[in-house]
Amino acid sequence: MNVIRNILNSRSGKNGNFFDAIQNIIGFKPKSITNYKRAFVHRSLNKKDSLGNDLNYERLEFLGDAMLSAIIAAYLFNEVPEGDEGYLTKMRSKVVSRKHLNELGNDLNLIQFIETNIPKDHFGQNIHGNLFEALIGAIYLDRGYKFCEKFIYERVIHPYVDIEQLEGKVISYKSLLIEWCQKQKHKFNYEVYEDTGKNEVKHFAVKLWIDGKVIAKARATSKKKAEEKASKRAYYAFQNKINTKQ
Amino acid sequence: MNVIRNILNSRSGKNGNFFDAIQNIIGFKPKSITNYKRAFVHRSLNKKDSLGNDLNYERLEFLGDAMLSAIIAAYLFNEVPEGDEGYLTKMRSKVVSRKHLNELGNDLNLIQFIETNIPKDHFGQNIHGNLFEALIGAIYLDRGYKFCEKFIYERVIHPYVDIEQLEGKVISYKSLLIEWCQKQKHKFNYEVYEDTGKNEVKHFAVKLWIDGKVIAKARATSKKKAEEKASKRAYYAFQNKINTKQ
Repeated sequence: MNVIRNILNSRSGKNGNFFDAIQNIIGFKPKSITNYKRAFVHRSLNKKDSLGNDLNYERLEFLGDAMLSAIIAAYLFNEVPEGDEGYLTKMRSKVVSRKHLNELGNDLNLIQFIETNIPKDHFGQNIHGNLFEALIGAIYLDRGYKFCEKFIYERVIHPYVDIEQLEGKVISYKSLLIEWCQKQKHKFNYEVYEDTGKNEVKHFAVKLWIDGKVIAKARATSKKKAEEKASKRAYYAFQNKINTKQ
Repeated sequence: MNVIRNILNSRSGKNGNFFDAIQNIIGFKPKSITNYKRAFVHRSLNKKDSLGNDLNYERLEFLGDAMLSAIIAAYLFNEVPEGDEGYLTKMRSKVVSRKHLNELGNDLNLIQFIETNIPKDHFGQNIHGNLFEALIGAIYLDRGYKFCEKFIYERVIHPYVDIEQLEGKVISYKSLLIEWCQKQKHKFNYEVYEDTGKNEVKHFAVKLWIDGKVIAKARATSKKKAEEKASKRAYYAFQNKINTKQ
């Protein structure tokens, strides 16, 4: 009975919700939940392990930052064969910029899990990026480099990293598309609605109508991002027709 | 016949020697030798691939640097549970310091493989560290993170990284040991001889005699390192007897 109770306990109540929520965010089952819990413990609680070592997310942040840098380096290396060492360094620093990491952590609403003595609204923006890095550290300890890479590809690279935008060649696909529609006298409309579905984090969906047809659909964690994603899809669909300024 | 000739060609002549030498250095068989070759091409040759992209070691250096940083971060995280984020950052920067990387590349004599238009003696010290990082980048591309980790553990961490020395608690085990011998009136002698064996790189061995007995043996790429290693072994063997100043 104890065994069954332990199994039930490990997946139910506060722990169970946390386990499920983390699984939802990272996209695979944690082997052990311990390090994920630690990834949300703020130093204000002054928690210690049995040996007296500090038990909060700051060391995980160090580890996660290192893994993120390595994985983004490998991604850029493969993705941009014509970029030299200086270019790769510059592009990586854009992807892992403080502003970008804060945005990622904020979109995943990681702050909902924080354990702290300080009121949540007293934290600045950096808390989002710090928790995001700590989460990567926890994934590395739990499942190793490959799963870290999977998480970063799915949560950072695919939804957010656009080489052309990072290079500043394309500032906004939405404005490119609108400009083209206006020039060519096409009617366009962005139909946006909430579509969170089973996700932990609020999501929005958008249908991009051009001349009465749905040309592209997209889903993201903000209206602006969903519109941008749909515009990018439409842009590539129309690519040969649109006169870009590149 | 062509197939057989190709197989023979791929392992013999200049290529074959290079293949064997790399295998010796990295400690496992390369799957493909291509990226290892690139890891030694200097920009002075102005080599390009078929798409006109630069073909030299500089991009691999960027990749190797990122992998090295991540692997050392994970090592320190596990090895020093009591170290906070600031400590881990400081210790990592000591391990991956330019001086240390140059020493590592130099000990492996990586410059022997360089392809360049510039006379080898025109290069400064940094060439050794750059080639070392490029080699790590090549290992990552050829065999992935796990093999990179294996190489770094065997070639960087085990032979060179000593947490106590990095922390400055112990400057030199040799001087600790000599001091102890002199205080305790023990006779000591470091017997050093060349012992390269099957290694690509020149090695030295040392026997540390105390009062007519061999107390510790060690082998390394320089006399100084071999003596230090043997002293460290003897130090730990005598640990309870030696009055350290820590």
